[in-house]
Formats: sequence, C-alpha cells, structure tokens
Amino acid sequence: MVAVDDGTRAARMRSHMEQLYPICRSITGDGVRQTLGLVGEALPAPLVLERRAVPSGTAAYDWTVNEEWNVRDAWIADATGRRVVDFQEHNLHLVSYSVPVRARMSMDELRPHLHTLPEHPDWIPYRTTYYKRTWGFCLTQRQLEAMGEGPFDVVVDTTLEPGELTYGELVIPGDTADEILFTSHVCHPSLANDNLSGIVVAIELARTLAGLARRRFSYRFVFAPGTIGSITWLSRNGALLDRIRHGLVLTGLGGPGPLVYKRTRRGDRTIDRAATHVVRRREGEVRDYSPYGYDERQFNAIGFDLPVGRLTRTPHGEYPEYHTSADDLGFLTDEKLLDAYDALLRIVEILENDAAYLNLSPHGEPQLGKRGLYPTTGGRSASDTVMAMLWTLAYSDGRVTLLDIADRAGLDFAQVCRAANDLAGAGLLERASEHPSR
Amino acid sequence: MVAVDDGTRAARMRSHMEQLYPICRSITGDGVRQTLGLVGEALPAPLVLERRAVPSGTAAYDWTVNEEWNVRDAWIADATGRRVVDFQEHNLHLVSYSVPVRARMSMDELRPHLHTLPEHPDWIPYRTTYYKRTWGFCLTQRQLEAMGEGPFDVVVDTTLEPGELTYGELVIPGDTADEILFTSHVCHPSLANDNLSGIVVAIELARTLAGLARRRFSYRFVFAPGTIGSITWLSRNGALLDRIRHGLVLTGLGGPGPLVYKRTRRGDRTIDRAATHVVRRREGEVRDYSPYGYDERQFNAIGFDLPVGRLTRTPHGEYPEYHTSADDLGFLTDEKLLDAYDALLRIVEILENDAAYLNLSPHGEPQLGKRGLYPTTGGRSASDTVMAMLWTLAYSDGRVTLLDIADRAGLDFAQVCRAANDLAGAGLLERASEHPSR
Amino acid sequence: MVAVDDGTRAARMRSHMEQLYPICRSITGDGVRQTLGLVGEALPAPLVLERRAVPSGTAAYDWTVNEEWNVRDAWIADATGRRVVDFQEHNLHLVSYSVPVRARMSMDELRPHLHTLPEHPDWIPYRTTYYKRTWGFCLTQRQLEAMGEGPFDVVVDTTLEPGELTYGELVIPGDTADEILFTSHVCHPSLANDNLSGIVVAIELARTLAGLARRRFSYRFVFAPGTIGSITWLSRNGALLDRIRHGLVLTGLGGPGPLVYKRTRRGDRTIDRAATHVVRRREGEVRDYSPYGYDERQFNAIGFDLPVGRLTRTPHGEYPEYHTSADDLGFLTDEKLLDAYDALLRIVEILENDAAYLNLSPHGEPQLGKRGLYPTTGGRSASDTVMAMLWTLAYSDGRVTLLDIADRAGLDFAQVCRAANDLAGAGLLERASEHPSR
Repeated sequence: MVAVDDGTRAARMRSHMEQLYPICRSITGDGVRQTLGLVGEALPAPLVLERRAVPSGTAAYDWTVNEEWNVRDAWIADATGRRVVDFQEHNLHLVSYSVPVRARMSMDELRPHLHTLPEHPDWIPYRTTYYKRTWGFCLTQRQLEAMGEGPFDVVVDTTLEPGELTYGELVIPGDTADEILFTSHVCHPSLANDNLSGIVVAIELARTLAGLARRRFSYRFVFAPGTIGSITWLSRNGALLDRIRHGLVLTGLGGPGPLVYKRTRRGDRTIDRAATHVVRRREGEVRDYSPYGYDERQFNAIGFDLPVGRLTRTPHGEYPEYHTSADDLGFLTDEKLLDAYDALLRIVEILENDAAYLNLSPHGEPQLGKRGLYPTTGGRSASDTVMAMLWTLAYSDGRVTLLDIADRAGLDFAQVCRAANDLAGAGLLERASEHPSR
Repeated sequence: MVAVDDGTRAARMRSHMEQLYPICRSITGDGVRQTLGLVGEALPAPLVLERRAVPSGTAAYDWTVNEEWNVRDAWIADATGRRVVDFQEHNLHLVSYSVPVRARMSMDELRPHLHTLPEHPDWIPYRTTYYKRTWGFCLTQRQLEAMGEGPFDVVVDTTLEPGELTYGELVIPGDTADEILFTSHVCHPSLANDNLSGIVVAIELARTLAGLARRRFSYRFVFAPGTIGSITWLSRNGALLDRIRHGLVLTGLGGPGPLVYKRTRRGDRTIDRAATHVVRRREGEVRDYSPYGYDERQFNAIGFDLPVGRLTRTPHGEYPEYHTSADDLGFLTDEKLLDAYDALLRIVEILENDAAYLNLSPHGEPQLGKRGLYPTTGGRSASDTVMAMLWTLAYSDGRVTLLDIADRAGLDFAQVCRAANDLAGAGLLERASEHPSR
Repeated sequence: MVAVDDGTRAARMRSHMEQLYPICRSITGDGVRQTLGLVGEALPAPLVLERRAVPSGTAAYDWTVNEEWNVRDAWIADATGRRVVDFQEHNLHLVSYSVPVRARMSMDELRPHLHTLPEHPDWIPYRTTYYKRTWGFCLTQRQLEAMGEGPFDVVVDTTLEPGELTYGELVIPGDTADEILFTSHVCHPSLANDNLSGIVVAIELARTLAGLARRRFSYRFVFAPGTIGSITWLSRNGALLDRIRHGLVLTGLGGPGPLVYKRTRRGDRTIDRAATHVVRRREGEVRDYSPYGYDERQFNAIGFDLPVGRLTRTPHGEYPEYHTSADDLGFLTDEKLLDAYDALLRIVEILENDAAYLNLSPHGEPQLGKRGLYPTTGGRSASDTVMAMLWTLAYSDGRVTLLDIADRAGLDFAQVCRAANDLAGAGLLERASEHPSR
C-alpha cells in the first residue's frame, strides 16, 4: 500500500466534488447516473462500481419505485421575457420532482409555489415534492422582493415517467464473507456537505481498503438515493443481510463541528463501541439513536435490525446552511474531510483487529525486562508503551477484548493493539477468539 | 363523562375542606366517623363509601387496635377562671390521646405538659401520645409567655375506652379484578395540607374515574387512620393483596413546592416508572424509598411488598408549617390541588393504556405519506406528532412498551399513545401484550 | 481487649519507625533481615513473626529469586580523599543493587552514573537496578554542582552473590480458616511514607486484632520485598490462596492527603465495598484498578485473581517527595497514621460483621415503642438510631446485608450493625446467612 500525503488526498476529494457539484441529482434520473459514472471513474483499478437499475413501479416492501424525473429547463420570466428565476443558474431553484407547467400567472397565483428563507435573504432553500404531484421554485428572499406583481411566464419543462431507480455498489473482498457496509446517499443536487462529502470520503476509504495486504472483512460501499434507494437495496439483498457485521451511513463530514456518531437503534453493537472509542478520543460527540435522520432509519428498522450507525459532523438541521445554497463547496474544509477519513480508518482498524487474547504467563506480572520490553532502571512512572502492555496482561483472560482494555485504560486502541502484538511476539499472549460480531 | 372546568373542581375541593377542617380527628373516635360521613356525602351516586369498624383490642399483626379516644372539652384556666388555652378555639391545643385530668397546678407543675414552637411564636404545634398514657397542651409561644405563674385549673375532659377503629373503602369496578389502590390518612385534626389535601384530591379522582366509559383496572380508595389504620386494613384484606397491581399514598398535595414522588421500596415497579414519567415532565422530583414517612411504610413492608409509591409536594418535615396550626386552609392553593389531581389522572392514563405493540410493517420505515400521516413537502424537521409515530414504529417489537418509548424519546406518554392509536388505525401496528404488571 | 489511647499508639508507631528508618533495605540482604527482626520484636506476645528464607536462583513462576545484595560501604572521593558522596551519610546515595566498583575516573566518565533531581536541588532521589548489572550514585543537585571535574575515586564495596530472599509472616487464627490478608513491602531504604508507614500501621492492626475476644476470620500479615517478594510468596503458598477471602496492600499511610482506596482488578469484591464505605465516609477517594502500583498487581494477576485492594493516601508518583530523601520521618504525621489505623479497623469491622438478616415481624412496621426502642411522643423527625432500625427492618429479607443497607441509607455501618443487634435482641430480626465472600 502506497502512502498518500494529505495534500494529495485532499486535492483529489476536492476535484471529485467540483465535478459532482453542478449535477442536478434527485432520487431518480440522469443526474444519479452521471454521479455514479463519476464515482466509478474516481475508483482506481481494479475496483469497479456495479450499477443497478430498478424499474419504476417495482415494489420495495411498503414502498414503490418512483417514476423517473428529469429536467430540461425551468424558469420564471417577467413581462419583458427576462428570466427572474432560472434553473440554469442553480439546481436548487426548482423544487425536486416538480411536474411540468407552462403558464402565465400573476404574483398572487404564483406566490404559493415560491419558497424563500427570509432569515437568510441571499440563500436559496432546497425543497422536494417526491410524493405529491405539484411544482415550485426556490429563490432568495431578495429575488422575491425584486419580482413585482407580474404577470410572469412560468415554465417547468420536466418529465416524470416510467424509468428506473439507479444505485451503485462496490465490493472489496476480504478473508471472510462477513461484510462491513458503508453507504452514502446520492440524491441531493448541488449540496456539498449534505451529500458530496460522504461520497468523496467513501471513495478515499475504498481506495485505501483496497490497497491493504489483507482484510479480515469484506467491504461493501453502496451509493444510492436516500430512503427509497436504501429500501430498494434492502428489498433486493435479503440474502446477504446476515453477513453485514457492521455498518455506517456517511454524510455531512466536511462542514464545521466535531465528529458526531449516532448509535444504532440497539445502541450496544460492536460498531457503536468502535465508533465511540474513536470519536470520543477526537473530542467528538456520541448520540443515541433517534428514528429521524438519514438511511440509518431503514437499516435499523425492526425487520432488518442491522448494526449500522451514522457518522457525520454537526448533523442535519443543526447548522443554518443545511439544505440551502450556502451548503456549497466553500462550506467544506480539507482538514475536516481528512479528519473524517482518518477517523473511519481507525474505526476499521478496530473492527479488523479487535479480539480477546489469553495471558500465557498469568501468575503475577511477567518479567518484561528480561524480554527487552521494560526499562531496566527503576524510575518514577511507566511509559504509555509499558502501560499498554501491563493493561493487556492484566485483563487478557480470553474473554475481554483489546477494545475493552483500551476503553478501560483510557488508551488508544492502536497502542493496546501494538502492545498485544509485542506481547504475542514475546510468547506472553495468544489470540483467544474473534470479537463477537454485531 | 362530563367535563368539569377547573374552577368548579377547585371550588368543590375547597368546600369539602372547609367542612372537614374544624373536625377533631385522631386515630379513632367521633371525628373519624364524621370525616368518613362527609367523604361519603361528597361522592356522587352511585359511589358508596363502605365504612368498616374494628373493635379496640383486635390484633393486627404486631399491633393492637387502640382504645377509642373522644374529647368533650379541654382547657387551662387562670385564677380568675379565664381560659388561657382552650380546645374549643383550636383542636391542636390538646395533645391527641391525652388522658383525662382535672387539677389545679402551678406553672412549675404544668410546664412539662406544655408544647410550643419558640421559633414560630404564633403557631400551635401538633403533638400526639398514642402509646404513652399522659396528657398535654399545645399553645403558641406568645400564649405561654403571657400565662404567668398560676395557679391554673387544668381540665382534660376526654374518654379513652373500648370502642372501634373506623375506616372507609370505595371500590370502582373495572374490566378486571386487578386493582389500583389509593390511600389517604384521616387522622389529623385541623391540618390542611397534611391530611385534607389528600382526601379531597382522592375524592375528585374517584369521581372522574367513576365517570370513565371503561376501566382496565378496578380502583380501590381507602380512607383510614395512619399506621394503625393501614396495618389494620392490611391485616383484614390478605386475600385481595395479590390483586393490587399499583398504588399510591396521597397527602400533602396542596401546599407549595413541586410534586415529589417517593419510589416503592424496590424502586423498579411499574408505578415507579409511570409516576416518574409524569412528575419529571412537570419539573417535579423523584426520590428513593426510605422507611420513614406515611403509610407507604406499611404497604412496602417485606411481608406485603406491595407496589405502592407516594405522591406529595414538599414532604413532611421539610416545610416549617408542617404539623403546626400554620398548615391551615390558607396554606393551600387551588392551582396546586388541581395540578396534583391532573398529575394523578395522567399516571392513571399510563397504567390503563401502557402496552407493547408490534410494528406490522417493519421492513424500513413505512410510507406514512400515502396513509395521510406525514407532511408531503420535504422540509427541515418533523413535528412531534410525526416523531411520536416514528419512535413508536422504530421500537415496537412486541416487547418494548409505549412508556418505554415515551421515556426514550423524551415525549409525553399521551403523544406516544395517540401515535400508537393512529398507527393501529392505519394497520401499521397491533397490540402485542399487556404491560407486565407490578 | 485493653483500650490504648491515641497518644500511646502514635508514640509506639513513631518509635518503631525511628528504629527502622536508618536500615539499608533492598529486595534481599541484611537490611531485610534486620527489619523483620525489629517487626518481630514490636509484636506483643504470643504473636510470632515467622521468617522464611528462599535461596537465590529459586524459580517463582516467571521470575527467579535474585542474588543477595549487601553493602559494606560506597563513596565518591575527590582528589584530596574527601568523600563528596557517602553512603554512610544516606542509604539513598547508592543505587540499590549496584555492582562492585573501585576506580578512578573523570567527571565525564562518572556523570552517566550520577542521578539528581534538578527541580528539587536539596533532595536525593531513590533509584534501583535490580535486573541490570550496573552501578550508580544518587545525590542532591547541589552536591553535583559542587563536585568539579575530578578526578574522583569511586568505591562501591558491595556483594552480589547467592544468598536468600527473606520475608516474614504472622497468622492470627480466627473461628474459621478463611483469611484476610494484609501485606506491606519491606524493601525500601530510608523512605518513611513509602514503606515504613505501612509496616507500623500493620503492626498496630495485628496487635489490636490479636486482642479481640473472637475473630470470624483468621488474619495473615505478610512483610515481604515488593514484586519478587510477593511473587515468591504466592509461588510457595498456592494451597492457601483459596482461603484468602479479602486482602489489602498497605503503604503510604502517613503522608498528607485523604485516604485513597484502589479497587481490586474486578472491582466488585466484598473488600471493594467495605473499603469504599469506610473511605468515602472519611472524605477519601476510591479509584479503579490499574496495573501499575504496588503488590496488588501480583495478587490481582489473572492466574491468582485474589480479592486484594490497596489502601494508601496520595499514591506513589503523585507527591513530589515520593522516592526521594524528602520522604523522611518528618513527612509523616501521627494524625494521619492513626486515622489510617482507625479506617482499617472499621473495614475489618465490616468484614467481620456483615451478614444478611431476616425480619421476623415483616407485616408492617413492628411496634418499636412497646419494646422500648422508639420515642413515645410523636414529634417531627426520627433519630439516626431509630432510622437505622427502620432501614434494617425495611430491607432485611434474608439476602440484603447490613452493608447494603448502610450504603443505601447513607448511614455508618456501625450504626446499622448496632441496630441489627438491638433488633435481634428484641426478637425482631435473626441472622440469615454469612455475607457471600470474595
């Protein structure tokens, strides 16, 4: 595995986001296919993003795959023909899934179809109408105030017809068929933190995992539209759900704020403990499950009960830029994206390496000194390296795992893992069993 | 059930208290019988308060029913014949269960029998001597200071002879023979918060429960003297104790301070969870059991181990007016009495309605929108109504109950209960089992 | 048992420490034997300290008993023959286990063998080199600065040859063969808090325990060198380890700071609960186990898993005087030594007396008044004595122990124990079973 410096990685993520940002994504349509195409191109050989297409009208448990929606153009023009709101200028101007319209109307007639954010007069809000057949425009408060009374020519040149829902999947095989699942939604148009950040961090993670010499787990990355996409994926993959040992929904990783891990519904899965260890050591926050949010709602639903948590920074709805045009590429920083990528690697490191060990010299503390593992002149305190060994010996009874020990000792998992390797190398410890999964 | 406005209810409680306040109650005697008579009259037809009489000398476990005590008159007069302390002026002037006396004595002889509150010179303390045959007077510090050296004529014209202990019971039948027990003591003379408040709130609660179209539980209200009364009741009702699923001791509900719930001895009964839910959401306080207090001591004793908690406001001994003449009708407010009544109704609502449900559409979140249960335009957050449905669906696995869900979600039980009803109405949920009782 | 006043006890502890302080102790050698001799003399008849000698080279699990080390003399002299560092002046001047040296050397050659504490220029540090064959001197920073460039005559006149490791044991038999173990290390030269305080408090404890009319447990006191001493002891006493029900490592009891109890590795042993009760009620601190410290590391190792906690004040490494010449007799106060002794007695009191009782009058609160156990005039609150009885009755179901009750009630164990005795005397309570040990 070739080390990549942070600058190279950050530049690559930013370049991907710049390509992805202008695309008009929704839960179906050309934008999703273009997005999946770019994700596929971003993956290094031999990784291949498999694209799946599910016809409109297909049943997925309680849901039905939507008609496909595409936009040719959309605008509001004033009496002089000047476009005062123009989809060509910003994808967010058109409410997603707007039905076709071509009409002249007064401001009074038009007004119920216009959405603004009076408290942020220069921002365009993001609105959707997937399940109610209507239409609308989103615009800045300043645009609205400058529009006058009309009349206006309103054109929504969209199509809403049988087509397909599209998602992409990538599998990186490991030593076992047990899987770790990462998912990111691909349905948000021109929103950077709430969508693109998850996609590009997932790409970097896949790239690194593919480069590892060995993997205990197989890794599955799913890039799908939110809600209907994940439910459709779940409905078509019942046979493999038993193999999903751990999982994370990824989004909102490049904006401000510390990392925020949202627990699984049960709250006591291995992924909860691994993510908590990593996030807390980075001054991040850990929250209990709630049934509102991203696709963790679907994976955790009682009928699936999958151990899938969620990693974000400040979550949806808690920062003013959320679901507005202010969630643009300038809202993200390289430092936050890299930090999220690094945290994910450390979570994976725990899932890959955690195990219970057995102390083979359990009658008193073994003499580390004669094995070259201990400073020989008695001093005043022990280094973290020695302490990690002492903690590992003290608790390795064949049931307690390295993560248990790291948490109890207040040490980083990586330190305890190194100590276990050193002690195993000296014949003082042997691996007892895998960590009980899920 | 006819709705009653708060003003009507408050006026009714106050009217009952005005009738009850002047009566000289003790653990036996005419005052208890008059009190039970007035309680019976306060209940609307067809409710009937059954009165029970237990002869003096009857054994009740480790205790024996006392002789009956009645007062004709009692006073201390100065040399001119003027009554300087007079039972006719205030019931509290005579120590309860004082034996008869008729004597002339100096202040030196009298002083050991006089009780005052030097720190509250205008208040009369409340004292009893149920189990030591003596006598005494309670008076204000100012009265004491004005008395001079005597001699005094002391008259305690009481009787203490074989009679009966009296208590009242009211049963409102429900769909099952399982019972919820409410008890209030009826042995305190002219004390408003510490006695009358519990009685009148219990009467209002009985009135409302009787008016319900259906009751899952039967309800039993016991009005009995403290300690010996509840032990006597327990000794005569062994056969029904197994049917008591939940219970509350009620007193001290009209004074200042937030609601204070005292847990059962075990601390993890259903009544503990229900009362905690209600009291905490009203900024009240929840305390662990301690073996000092009111009749919860008897119900929770190891030999009975009944799930009976206690609801008060600031408890006995923690407000200066406690057990003094300052605990009068002016010490209580309608607002506090009504709030206590309302909290009790909400506790009953939980006990009646809590149950585990089963999500019938558990594979992902069901599509609430197509059932008219969800706003159709994607916005920024979900209402409490929608959140209550999402929480209920997320956790209704047939074992977790609505109260569990409300506590976890930080929602009011009533909201979650409505959500469960709405979801059941839409065919998304079905009742799985009753809440495990006790 | 004859009561001893605090002044007598304090004077006795100080006298023992004054005899012990000048001795040059290490993990083997004459100093240990002299120390054990003095400990033996300090014990009142018929107590006998049994001395055990284990030959150098004997295997003890992963360890081997060291060669015996003795010092005839050691010094550094300047060109004029004046001793600038002199073992005769302070034991700490010589690094423990220094190999023999006789050489003339420049400061450049000598410097790597010199140890000082620049931040405390008047203190001599304490250093050892048990497992690396080298030598060194410890001196004050001021001495070092005054030494000049040399040349110096360096003499370390020590012997390091086959001999023995020595430790002492004292057993005070009780009603059962189950044992409580107290250990103190005896390997530190001229350090008062970190060594002598544990020894003299243990002597006082043994003296008092031997004077008790009855003991439920047998008591074993071990005075042994740290680490190799306790491991050697463990290796030779496998058959009795099952009898050790509770234990404490004692050291650092006379310096400043509150008592600090360090839990056993498992953290939920009876000794943990007993010591926590006592230490918390003295504003002390309770800490979780960590695998660094004194001999608790060995007793708690997985292969032994003994319920041995540790009692100190501010622990090793957390006070600047630790392992320096400033840890001298002036660093200790009688008050702290006596307080530690008293805390130990109270811990023993719990271990000896804790048990579950059965309430024989469980149907309601028994009538304490008629048994002379309750004030007869109803007042405003109950005394601690009455409360201790009420708590004991309320929870004595044959499984809950007196310590459980004391902790729950926030009362001192001694109060609850007295209440149980009073109630048992009145026929209201009977002993149900011993406390589950370990």
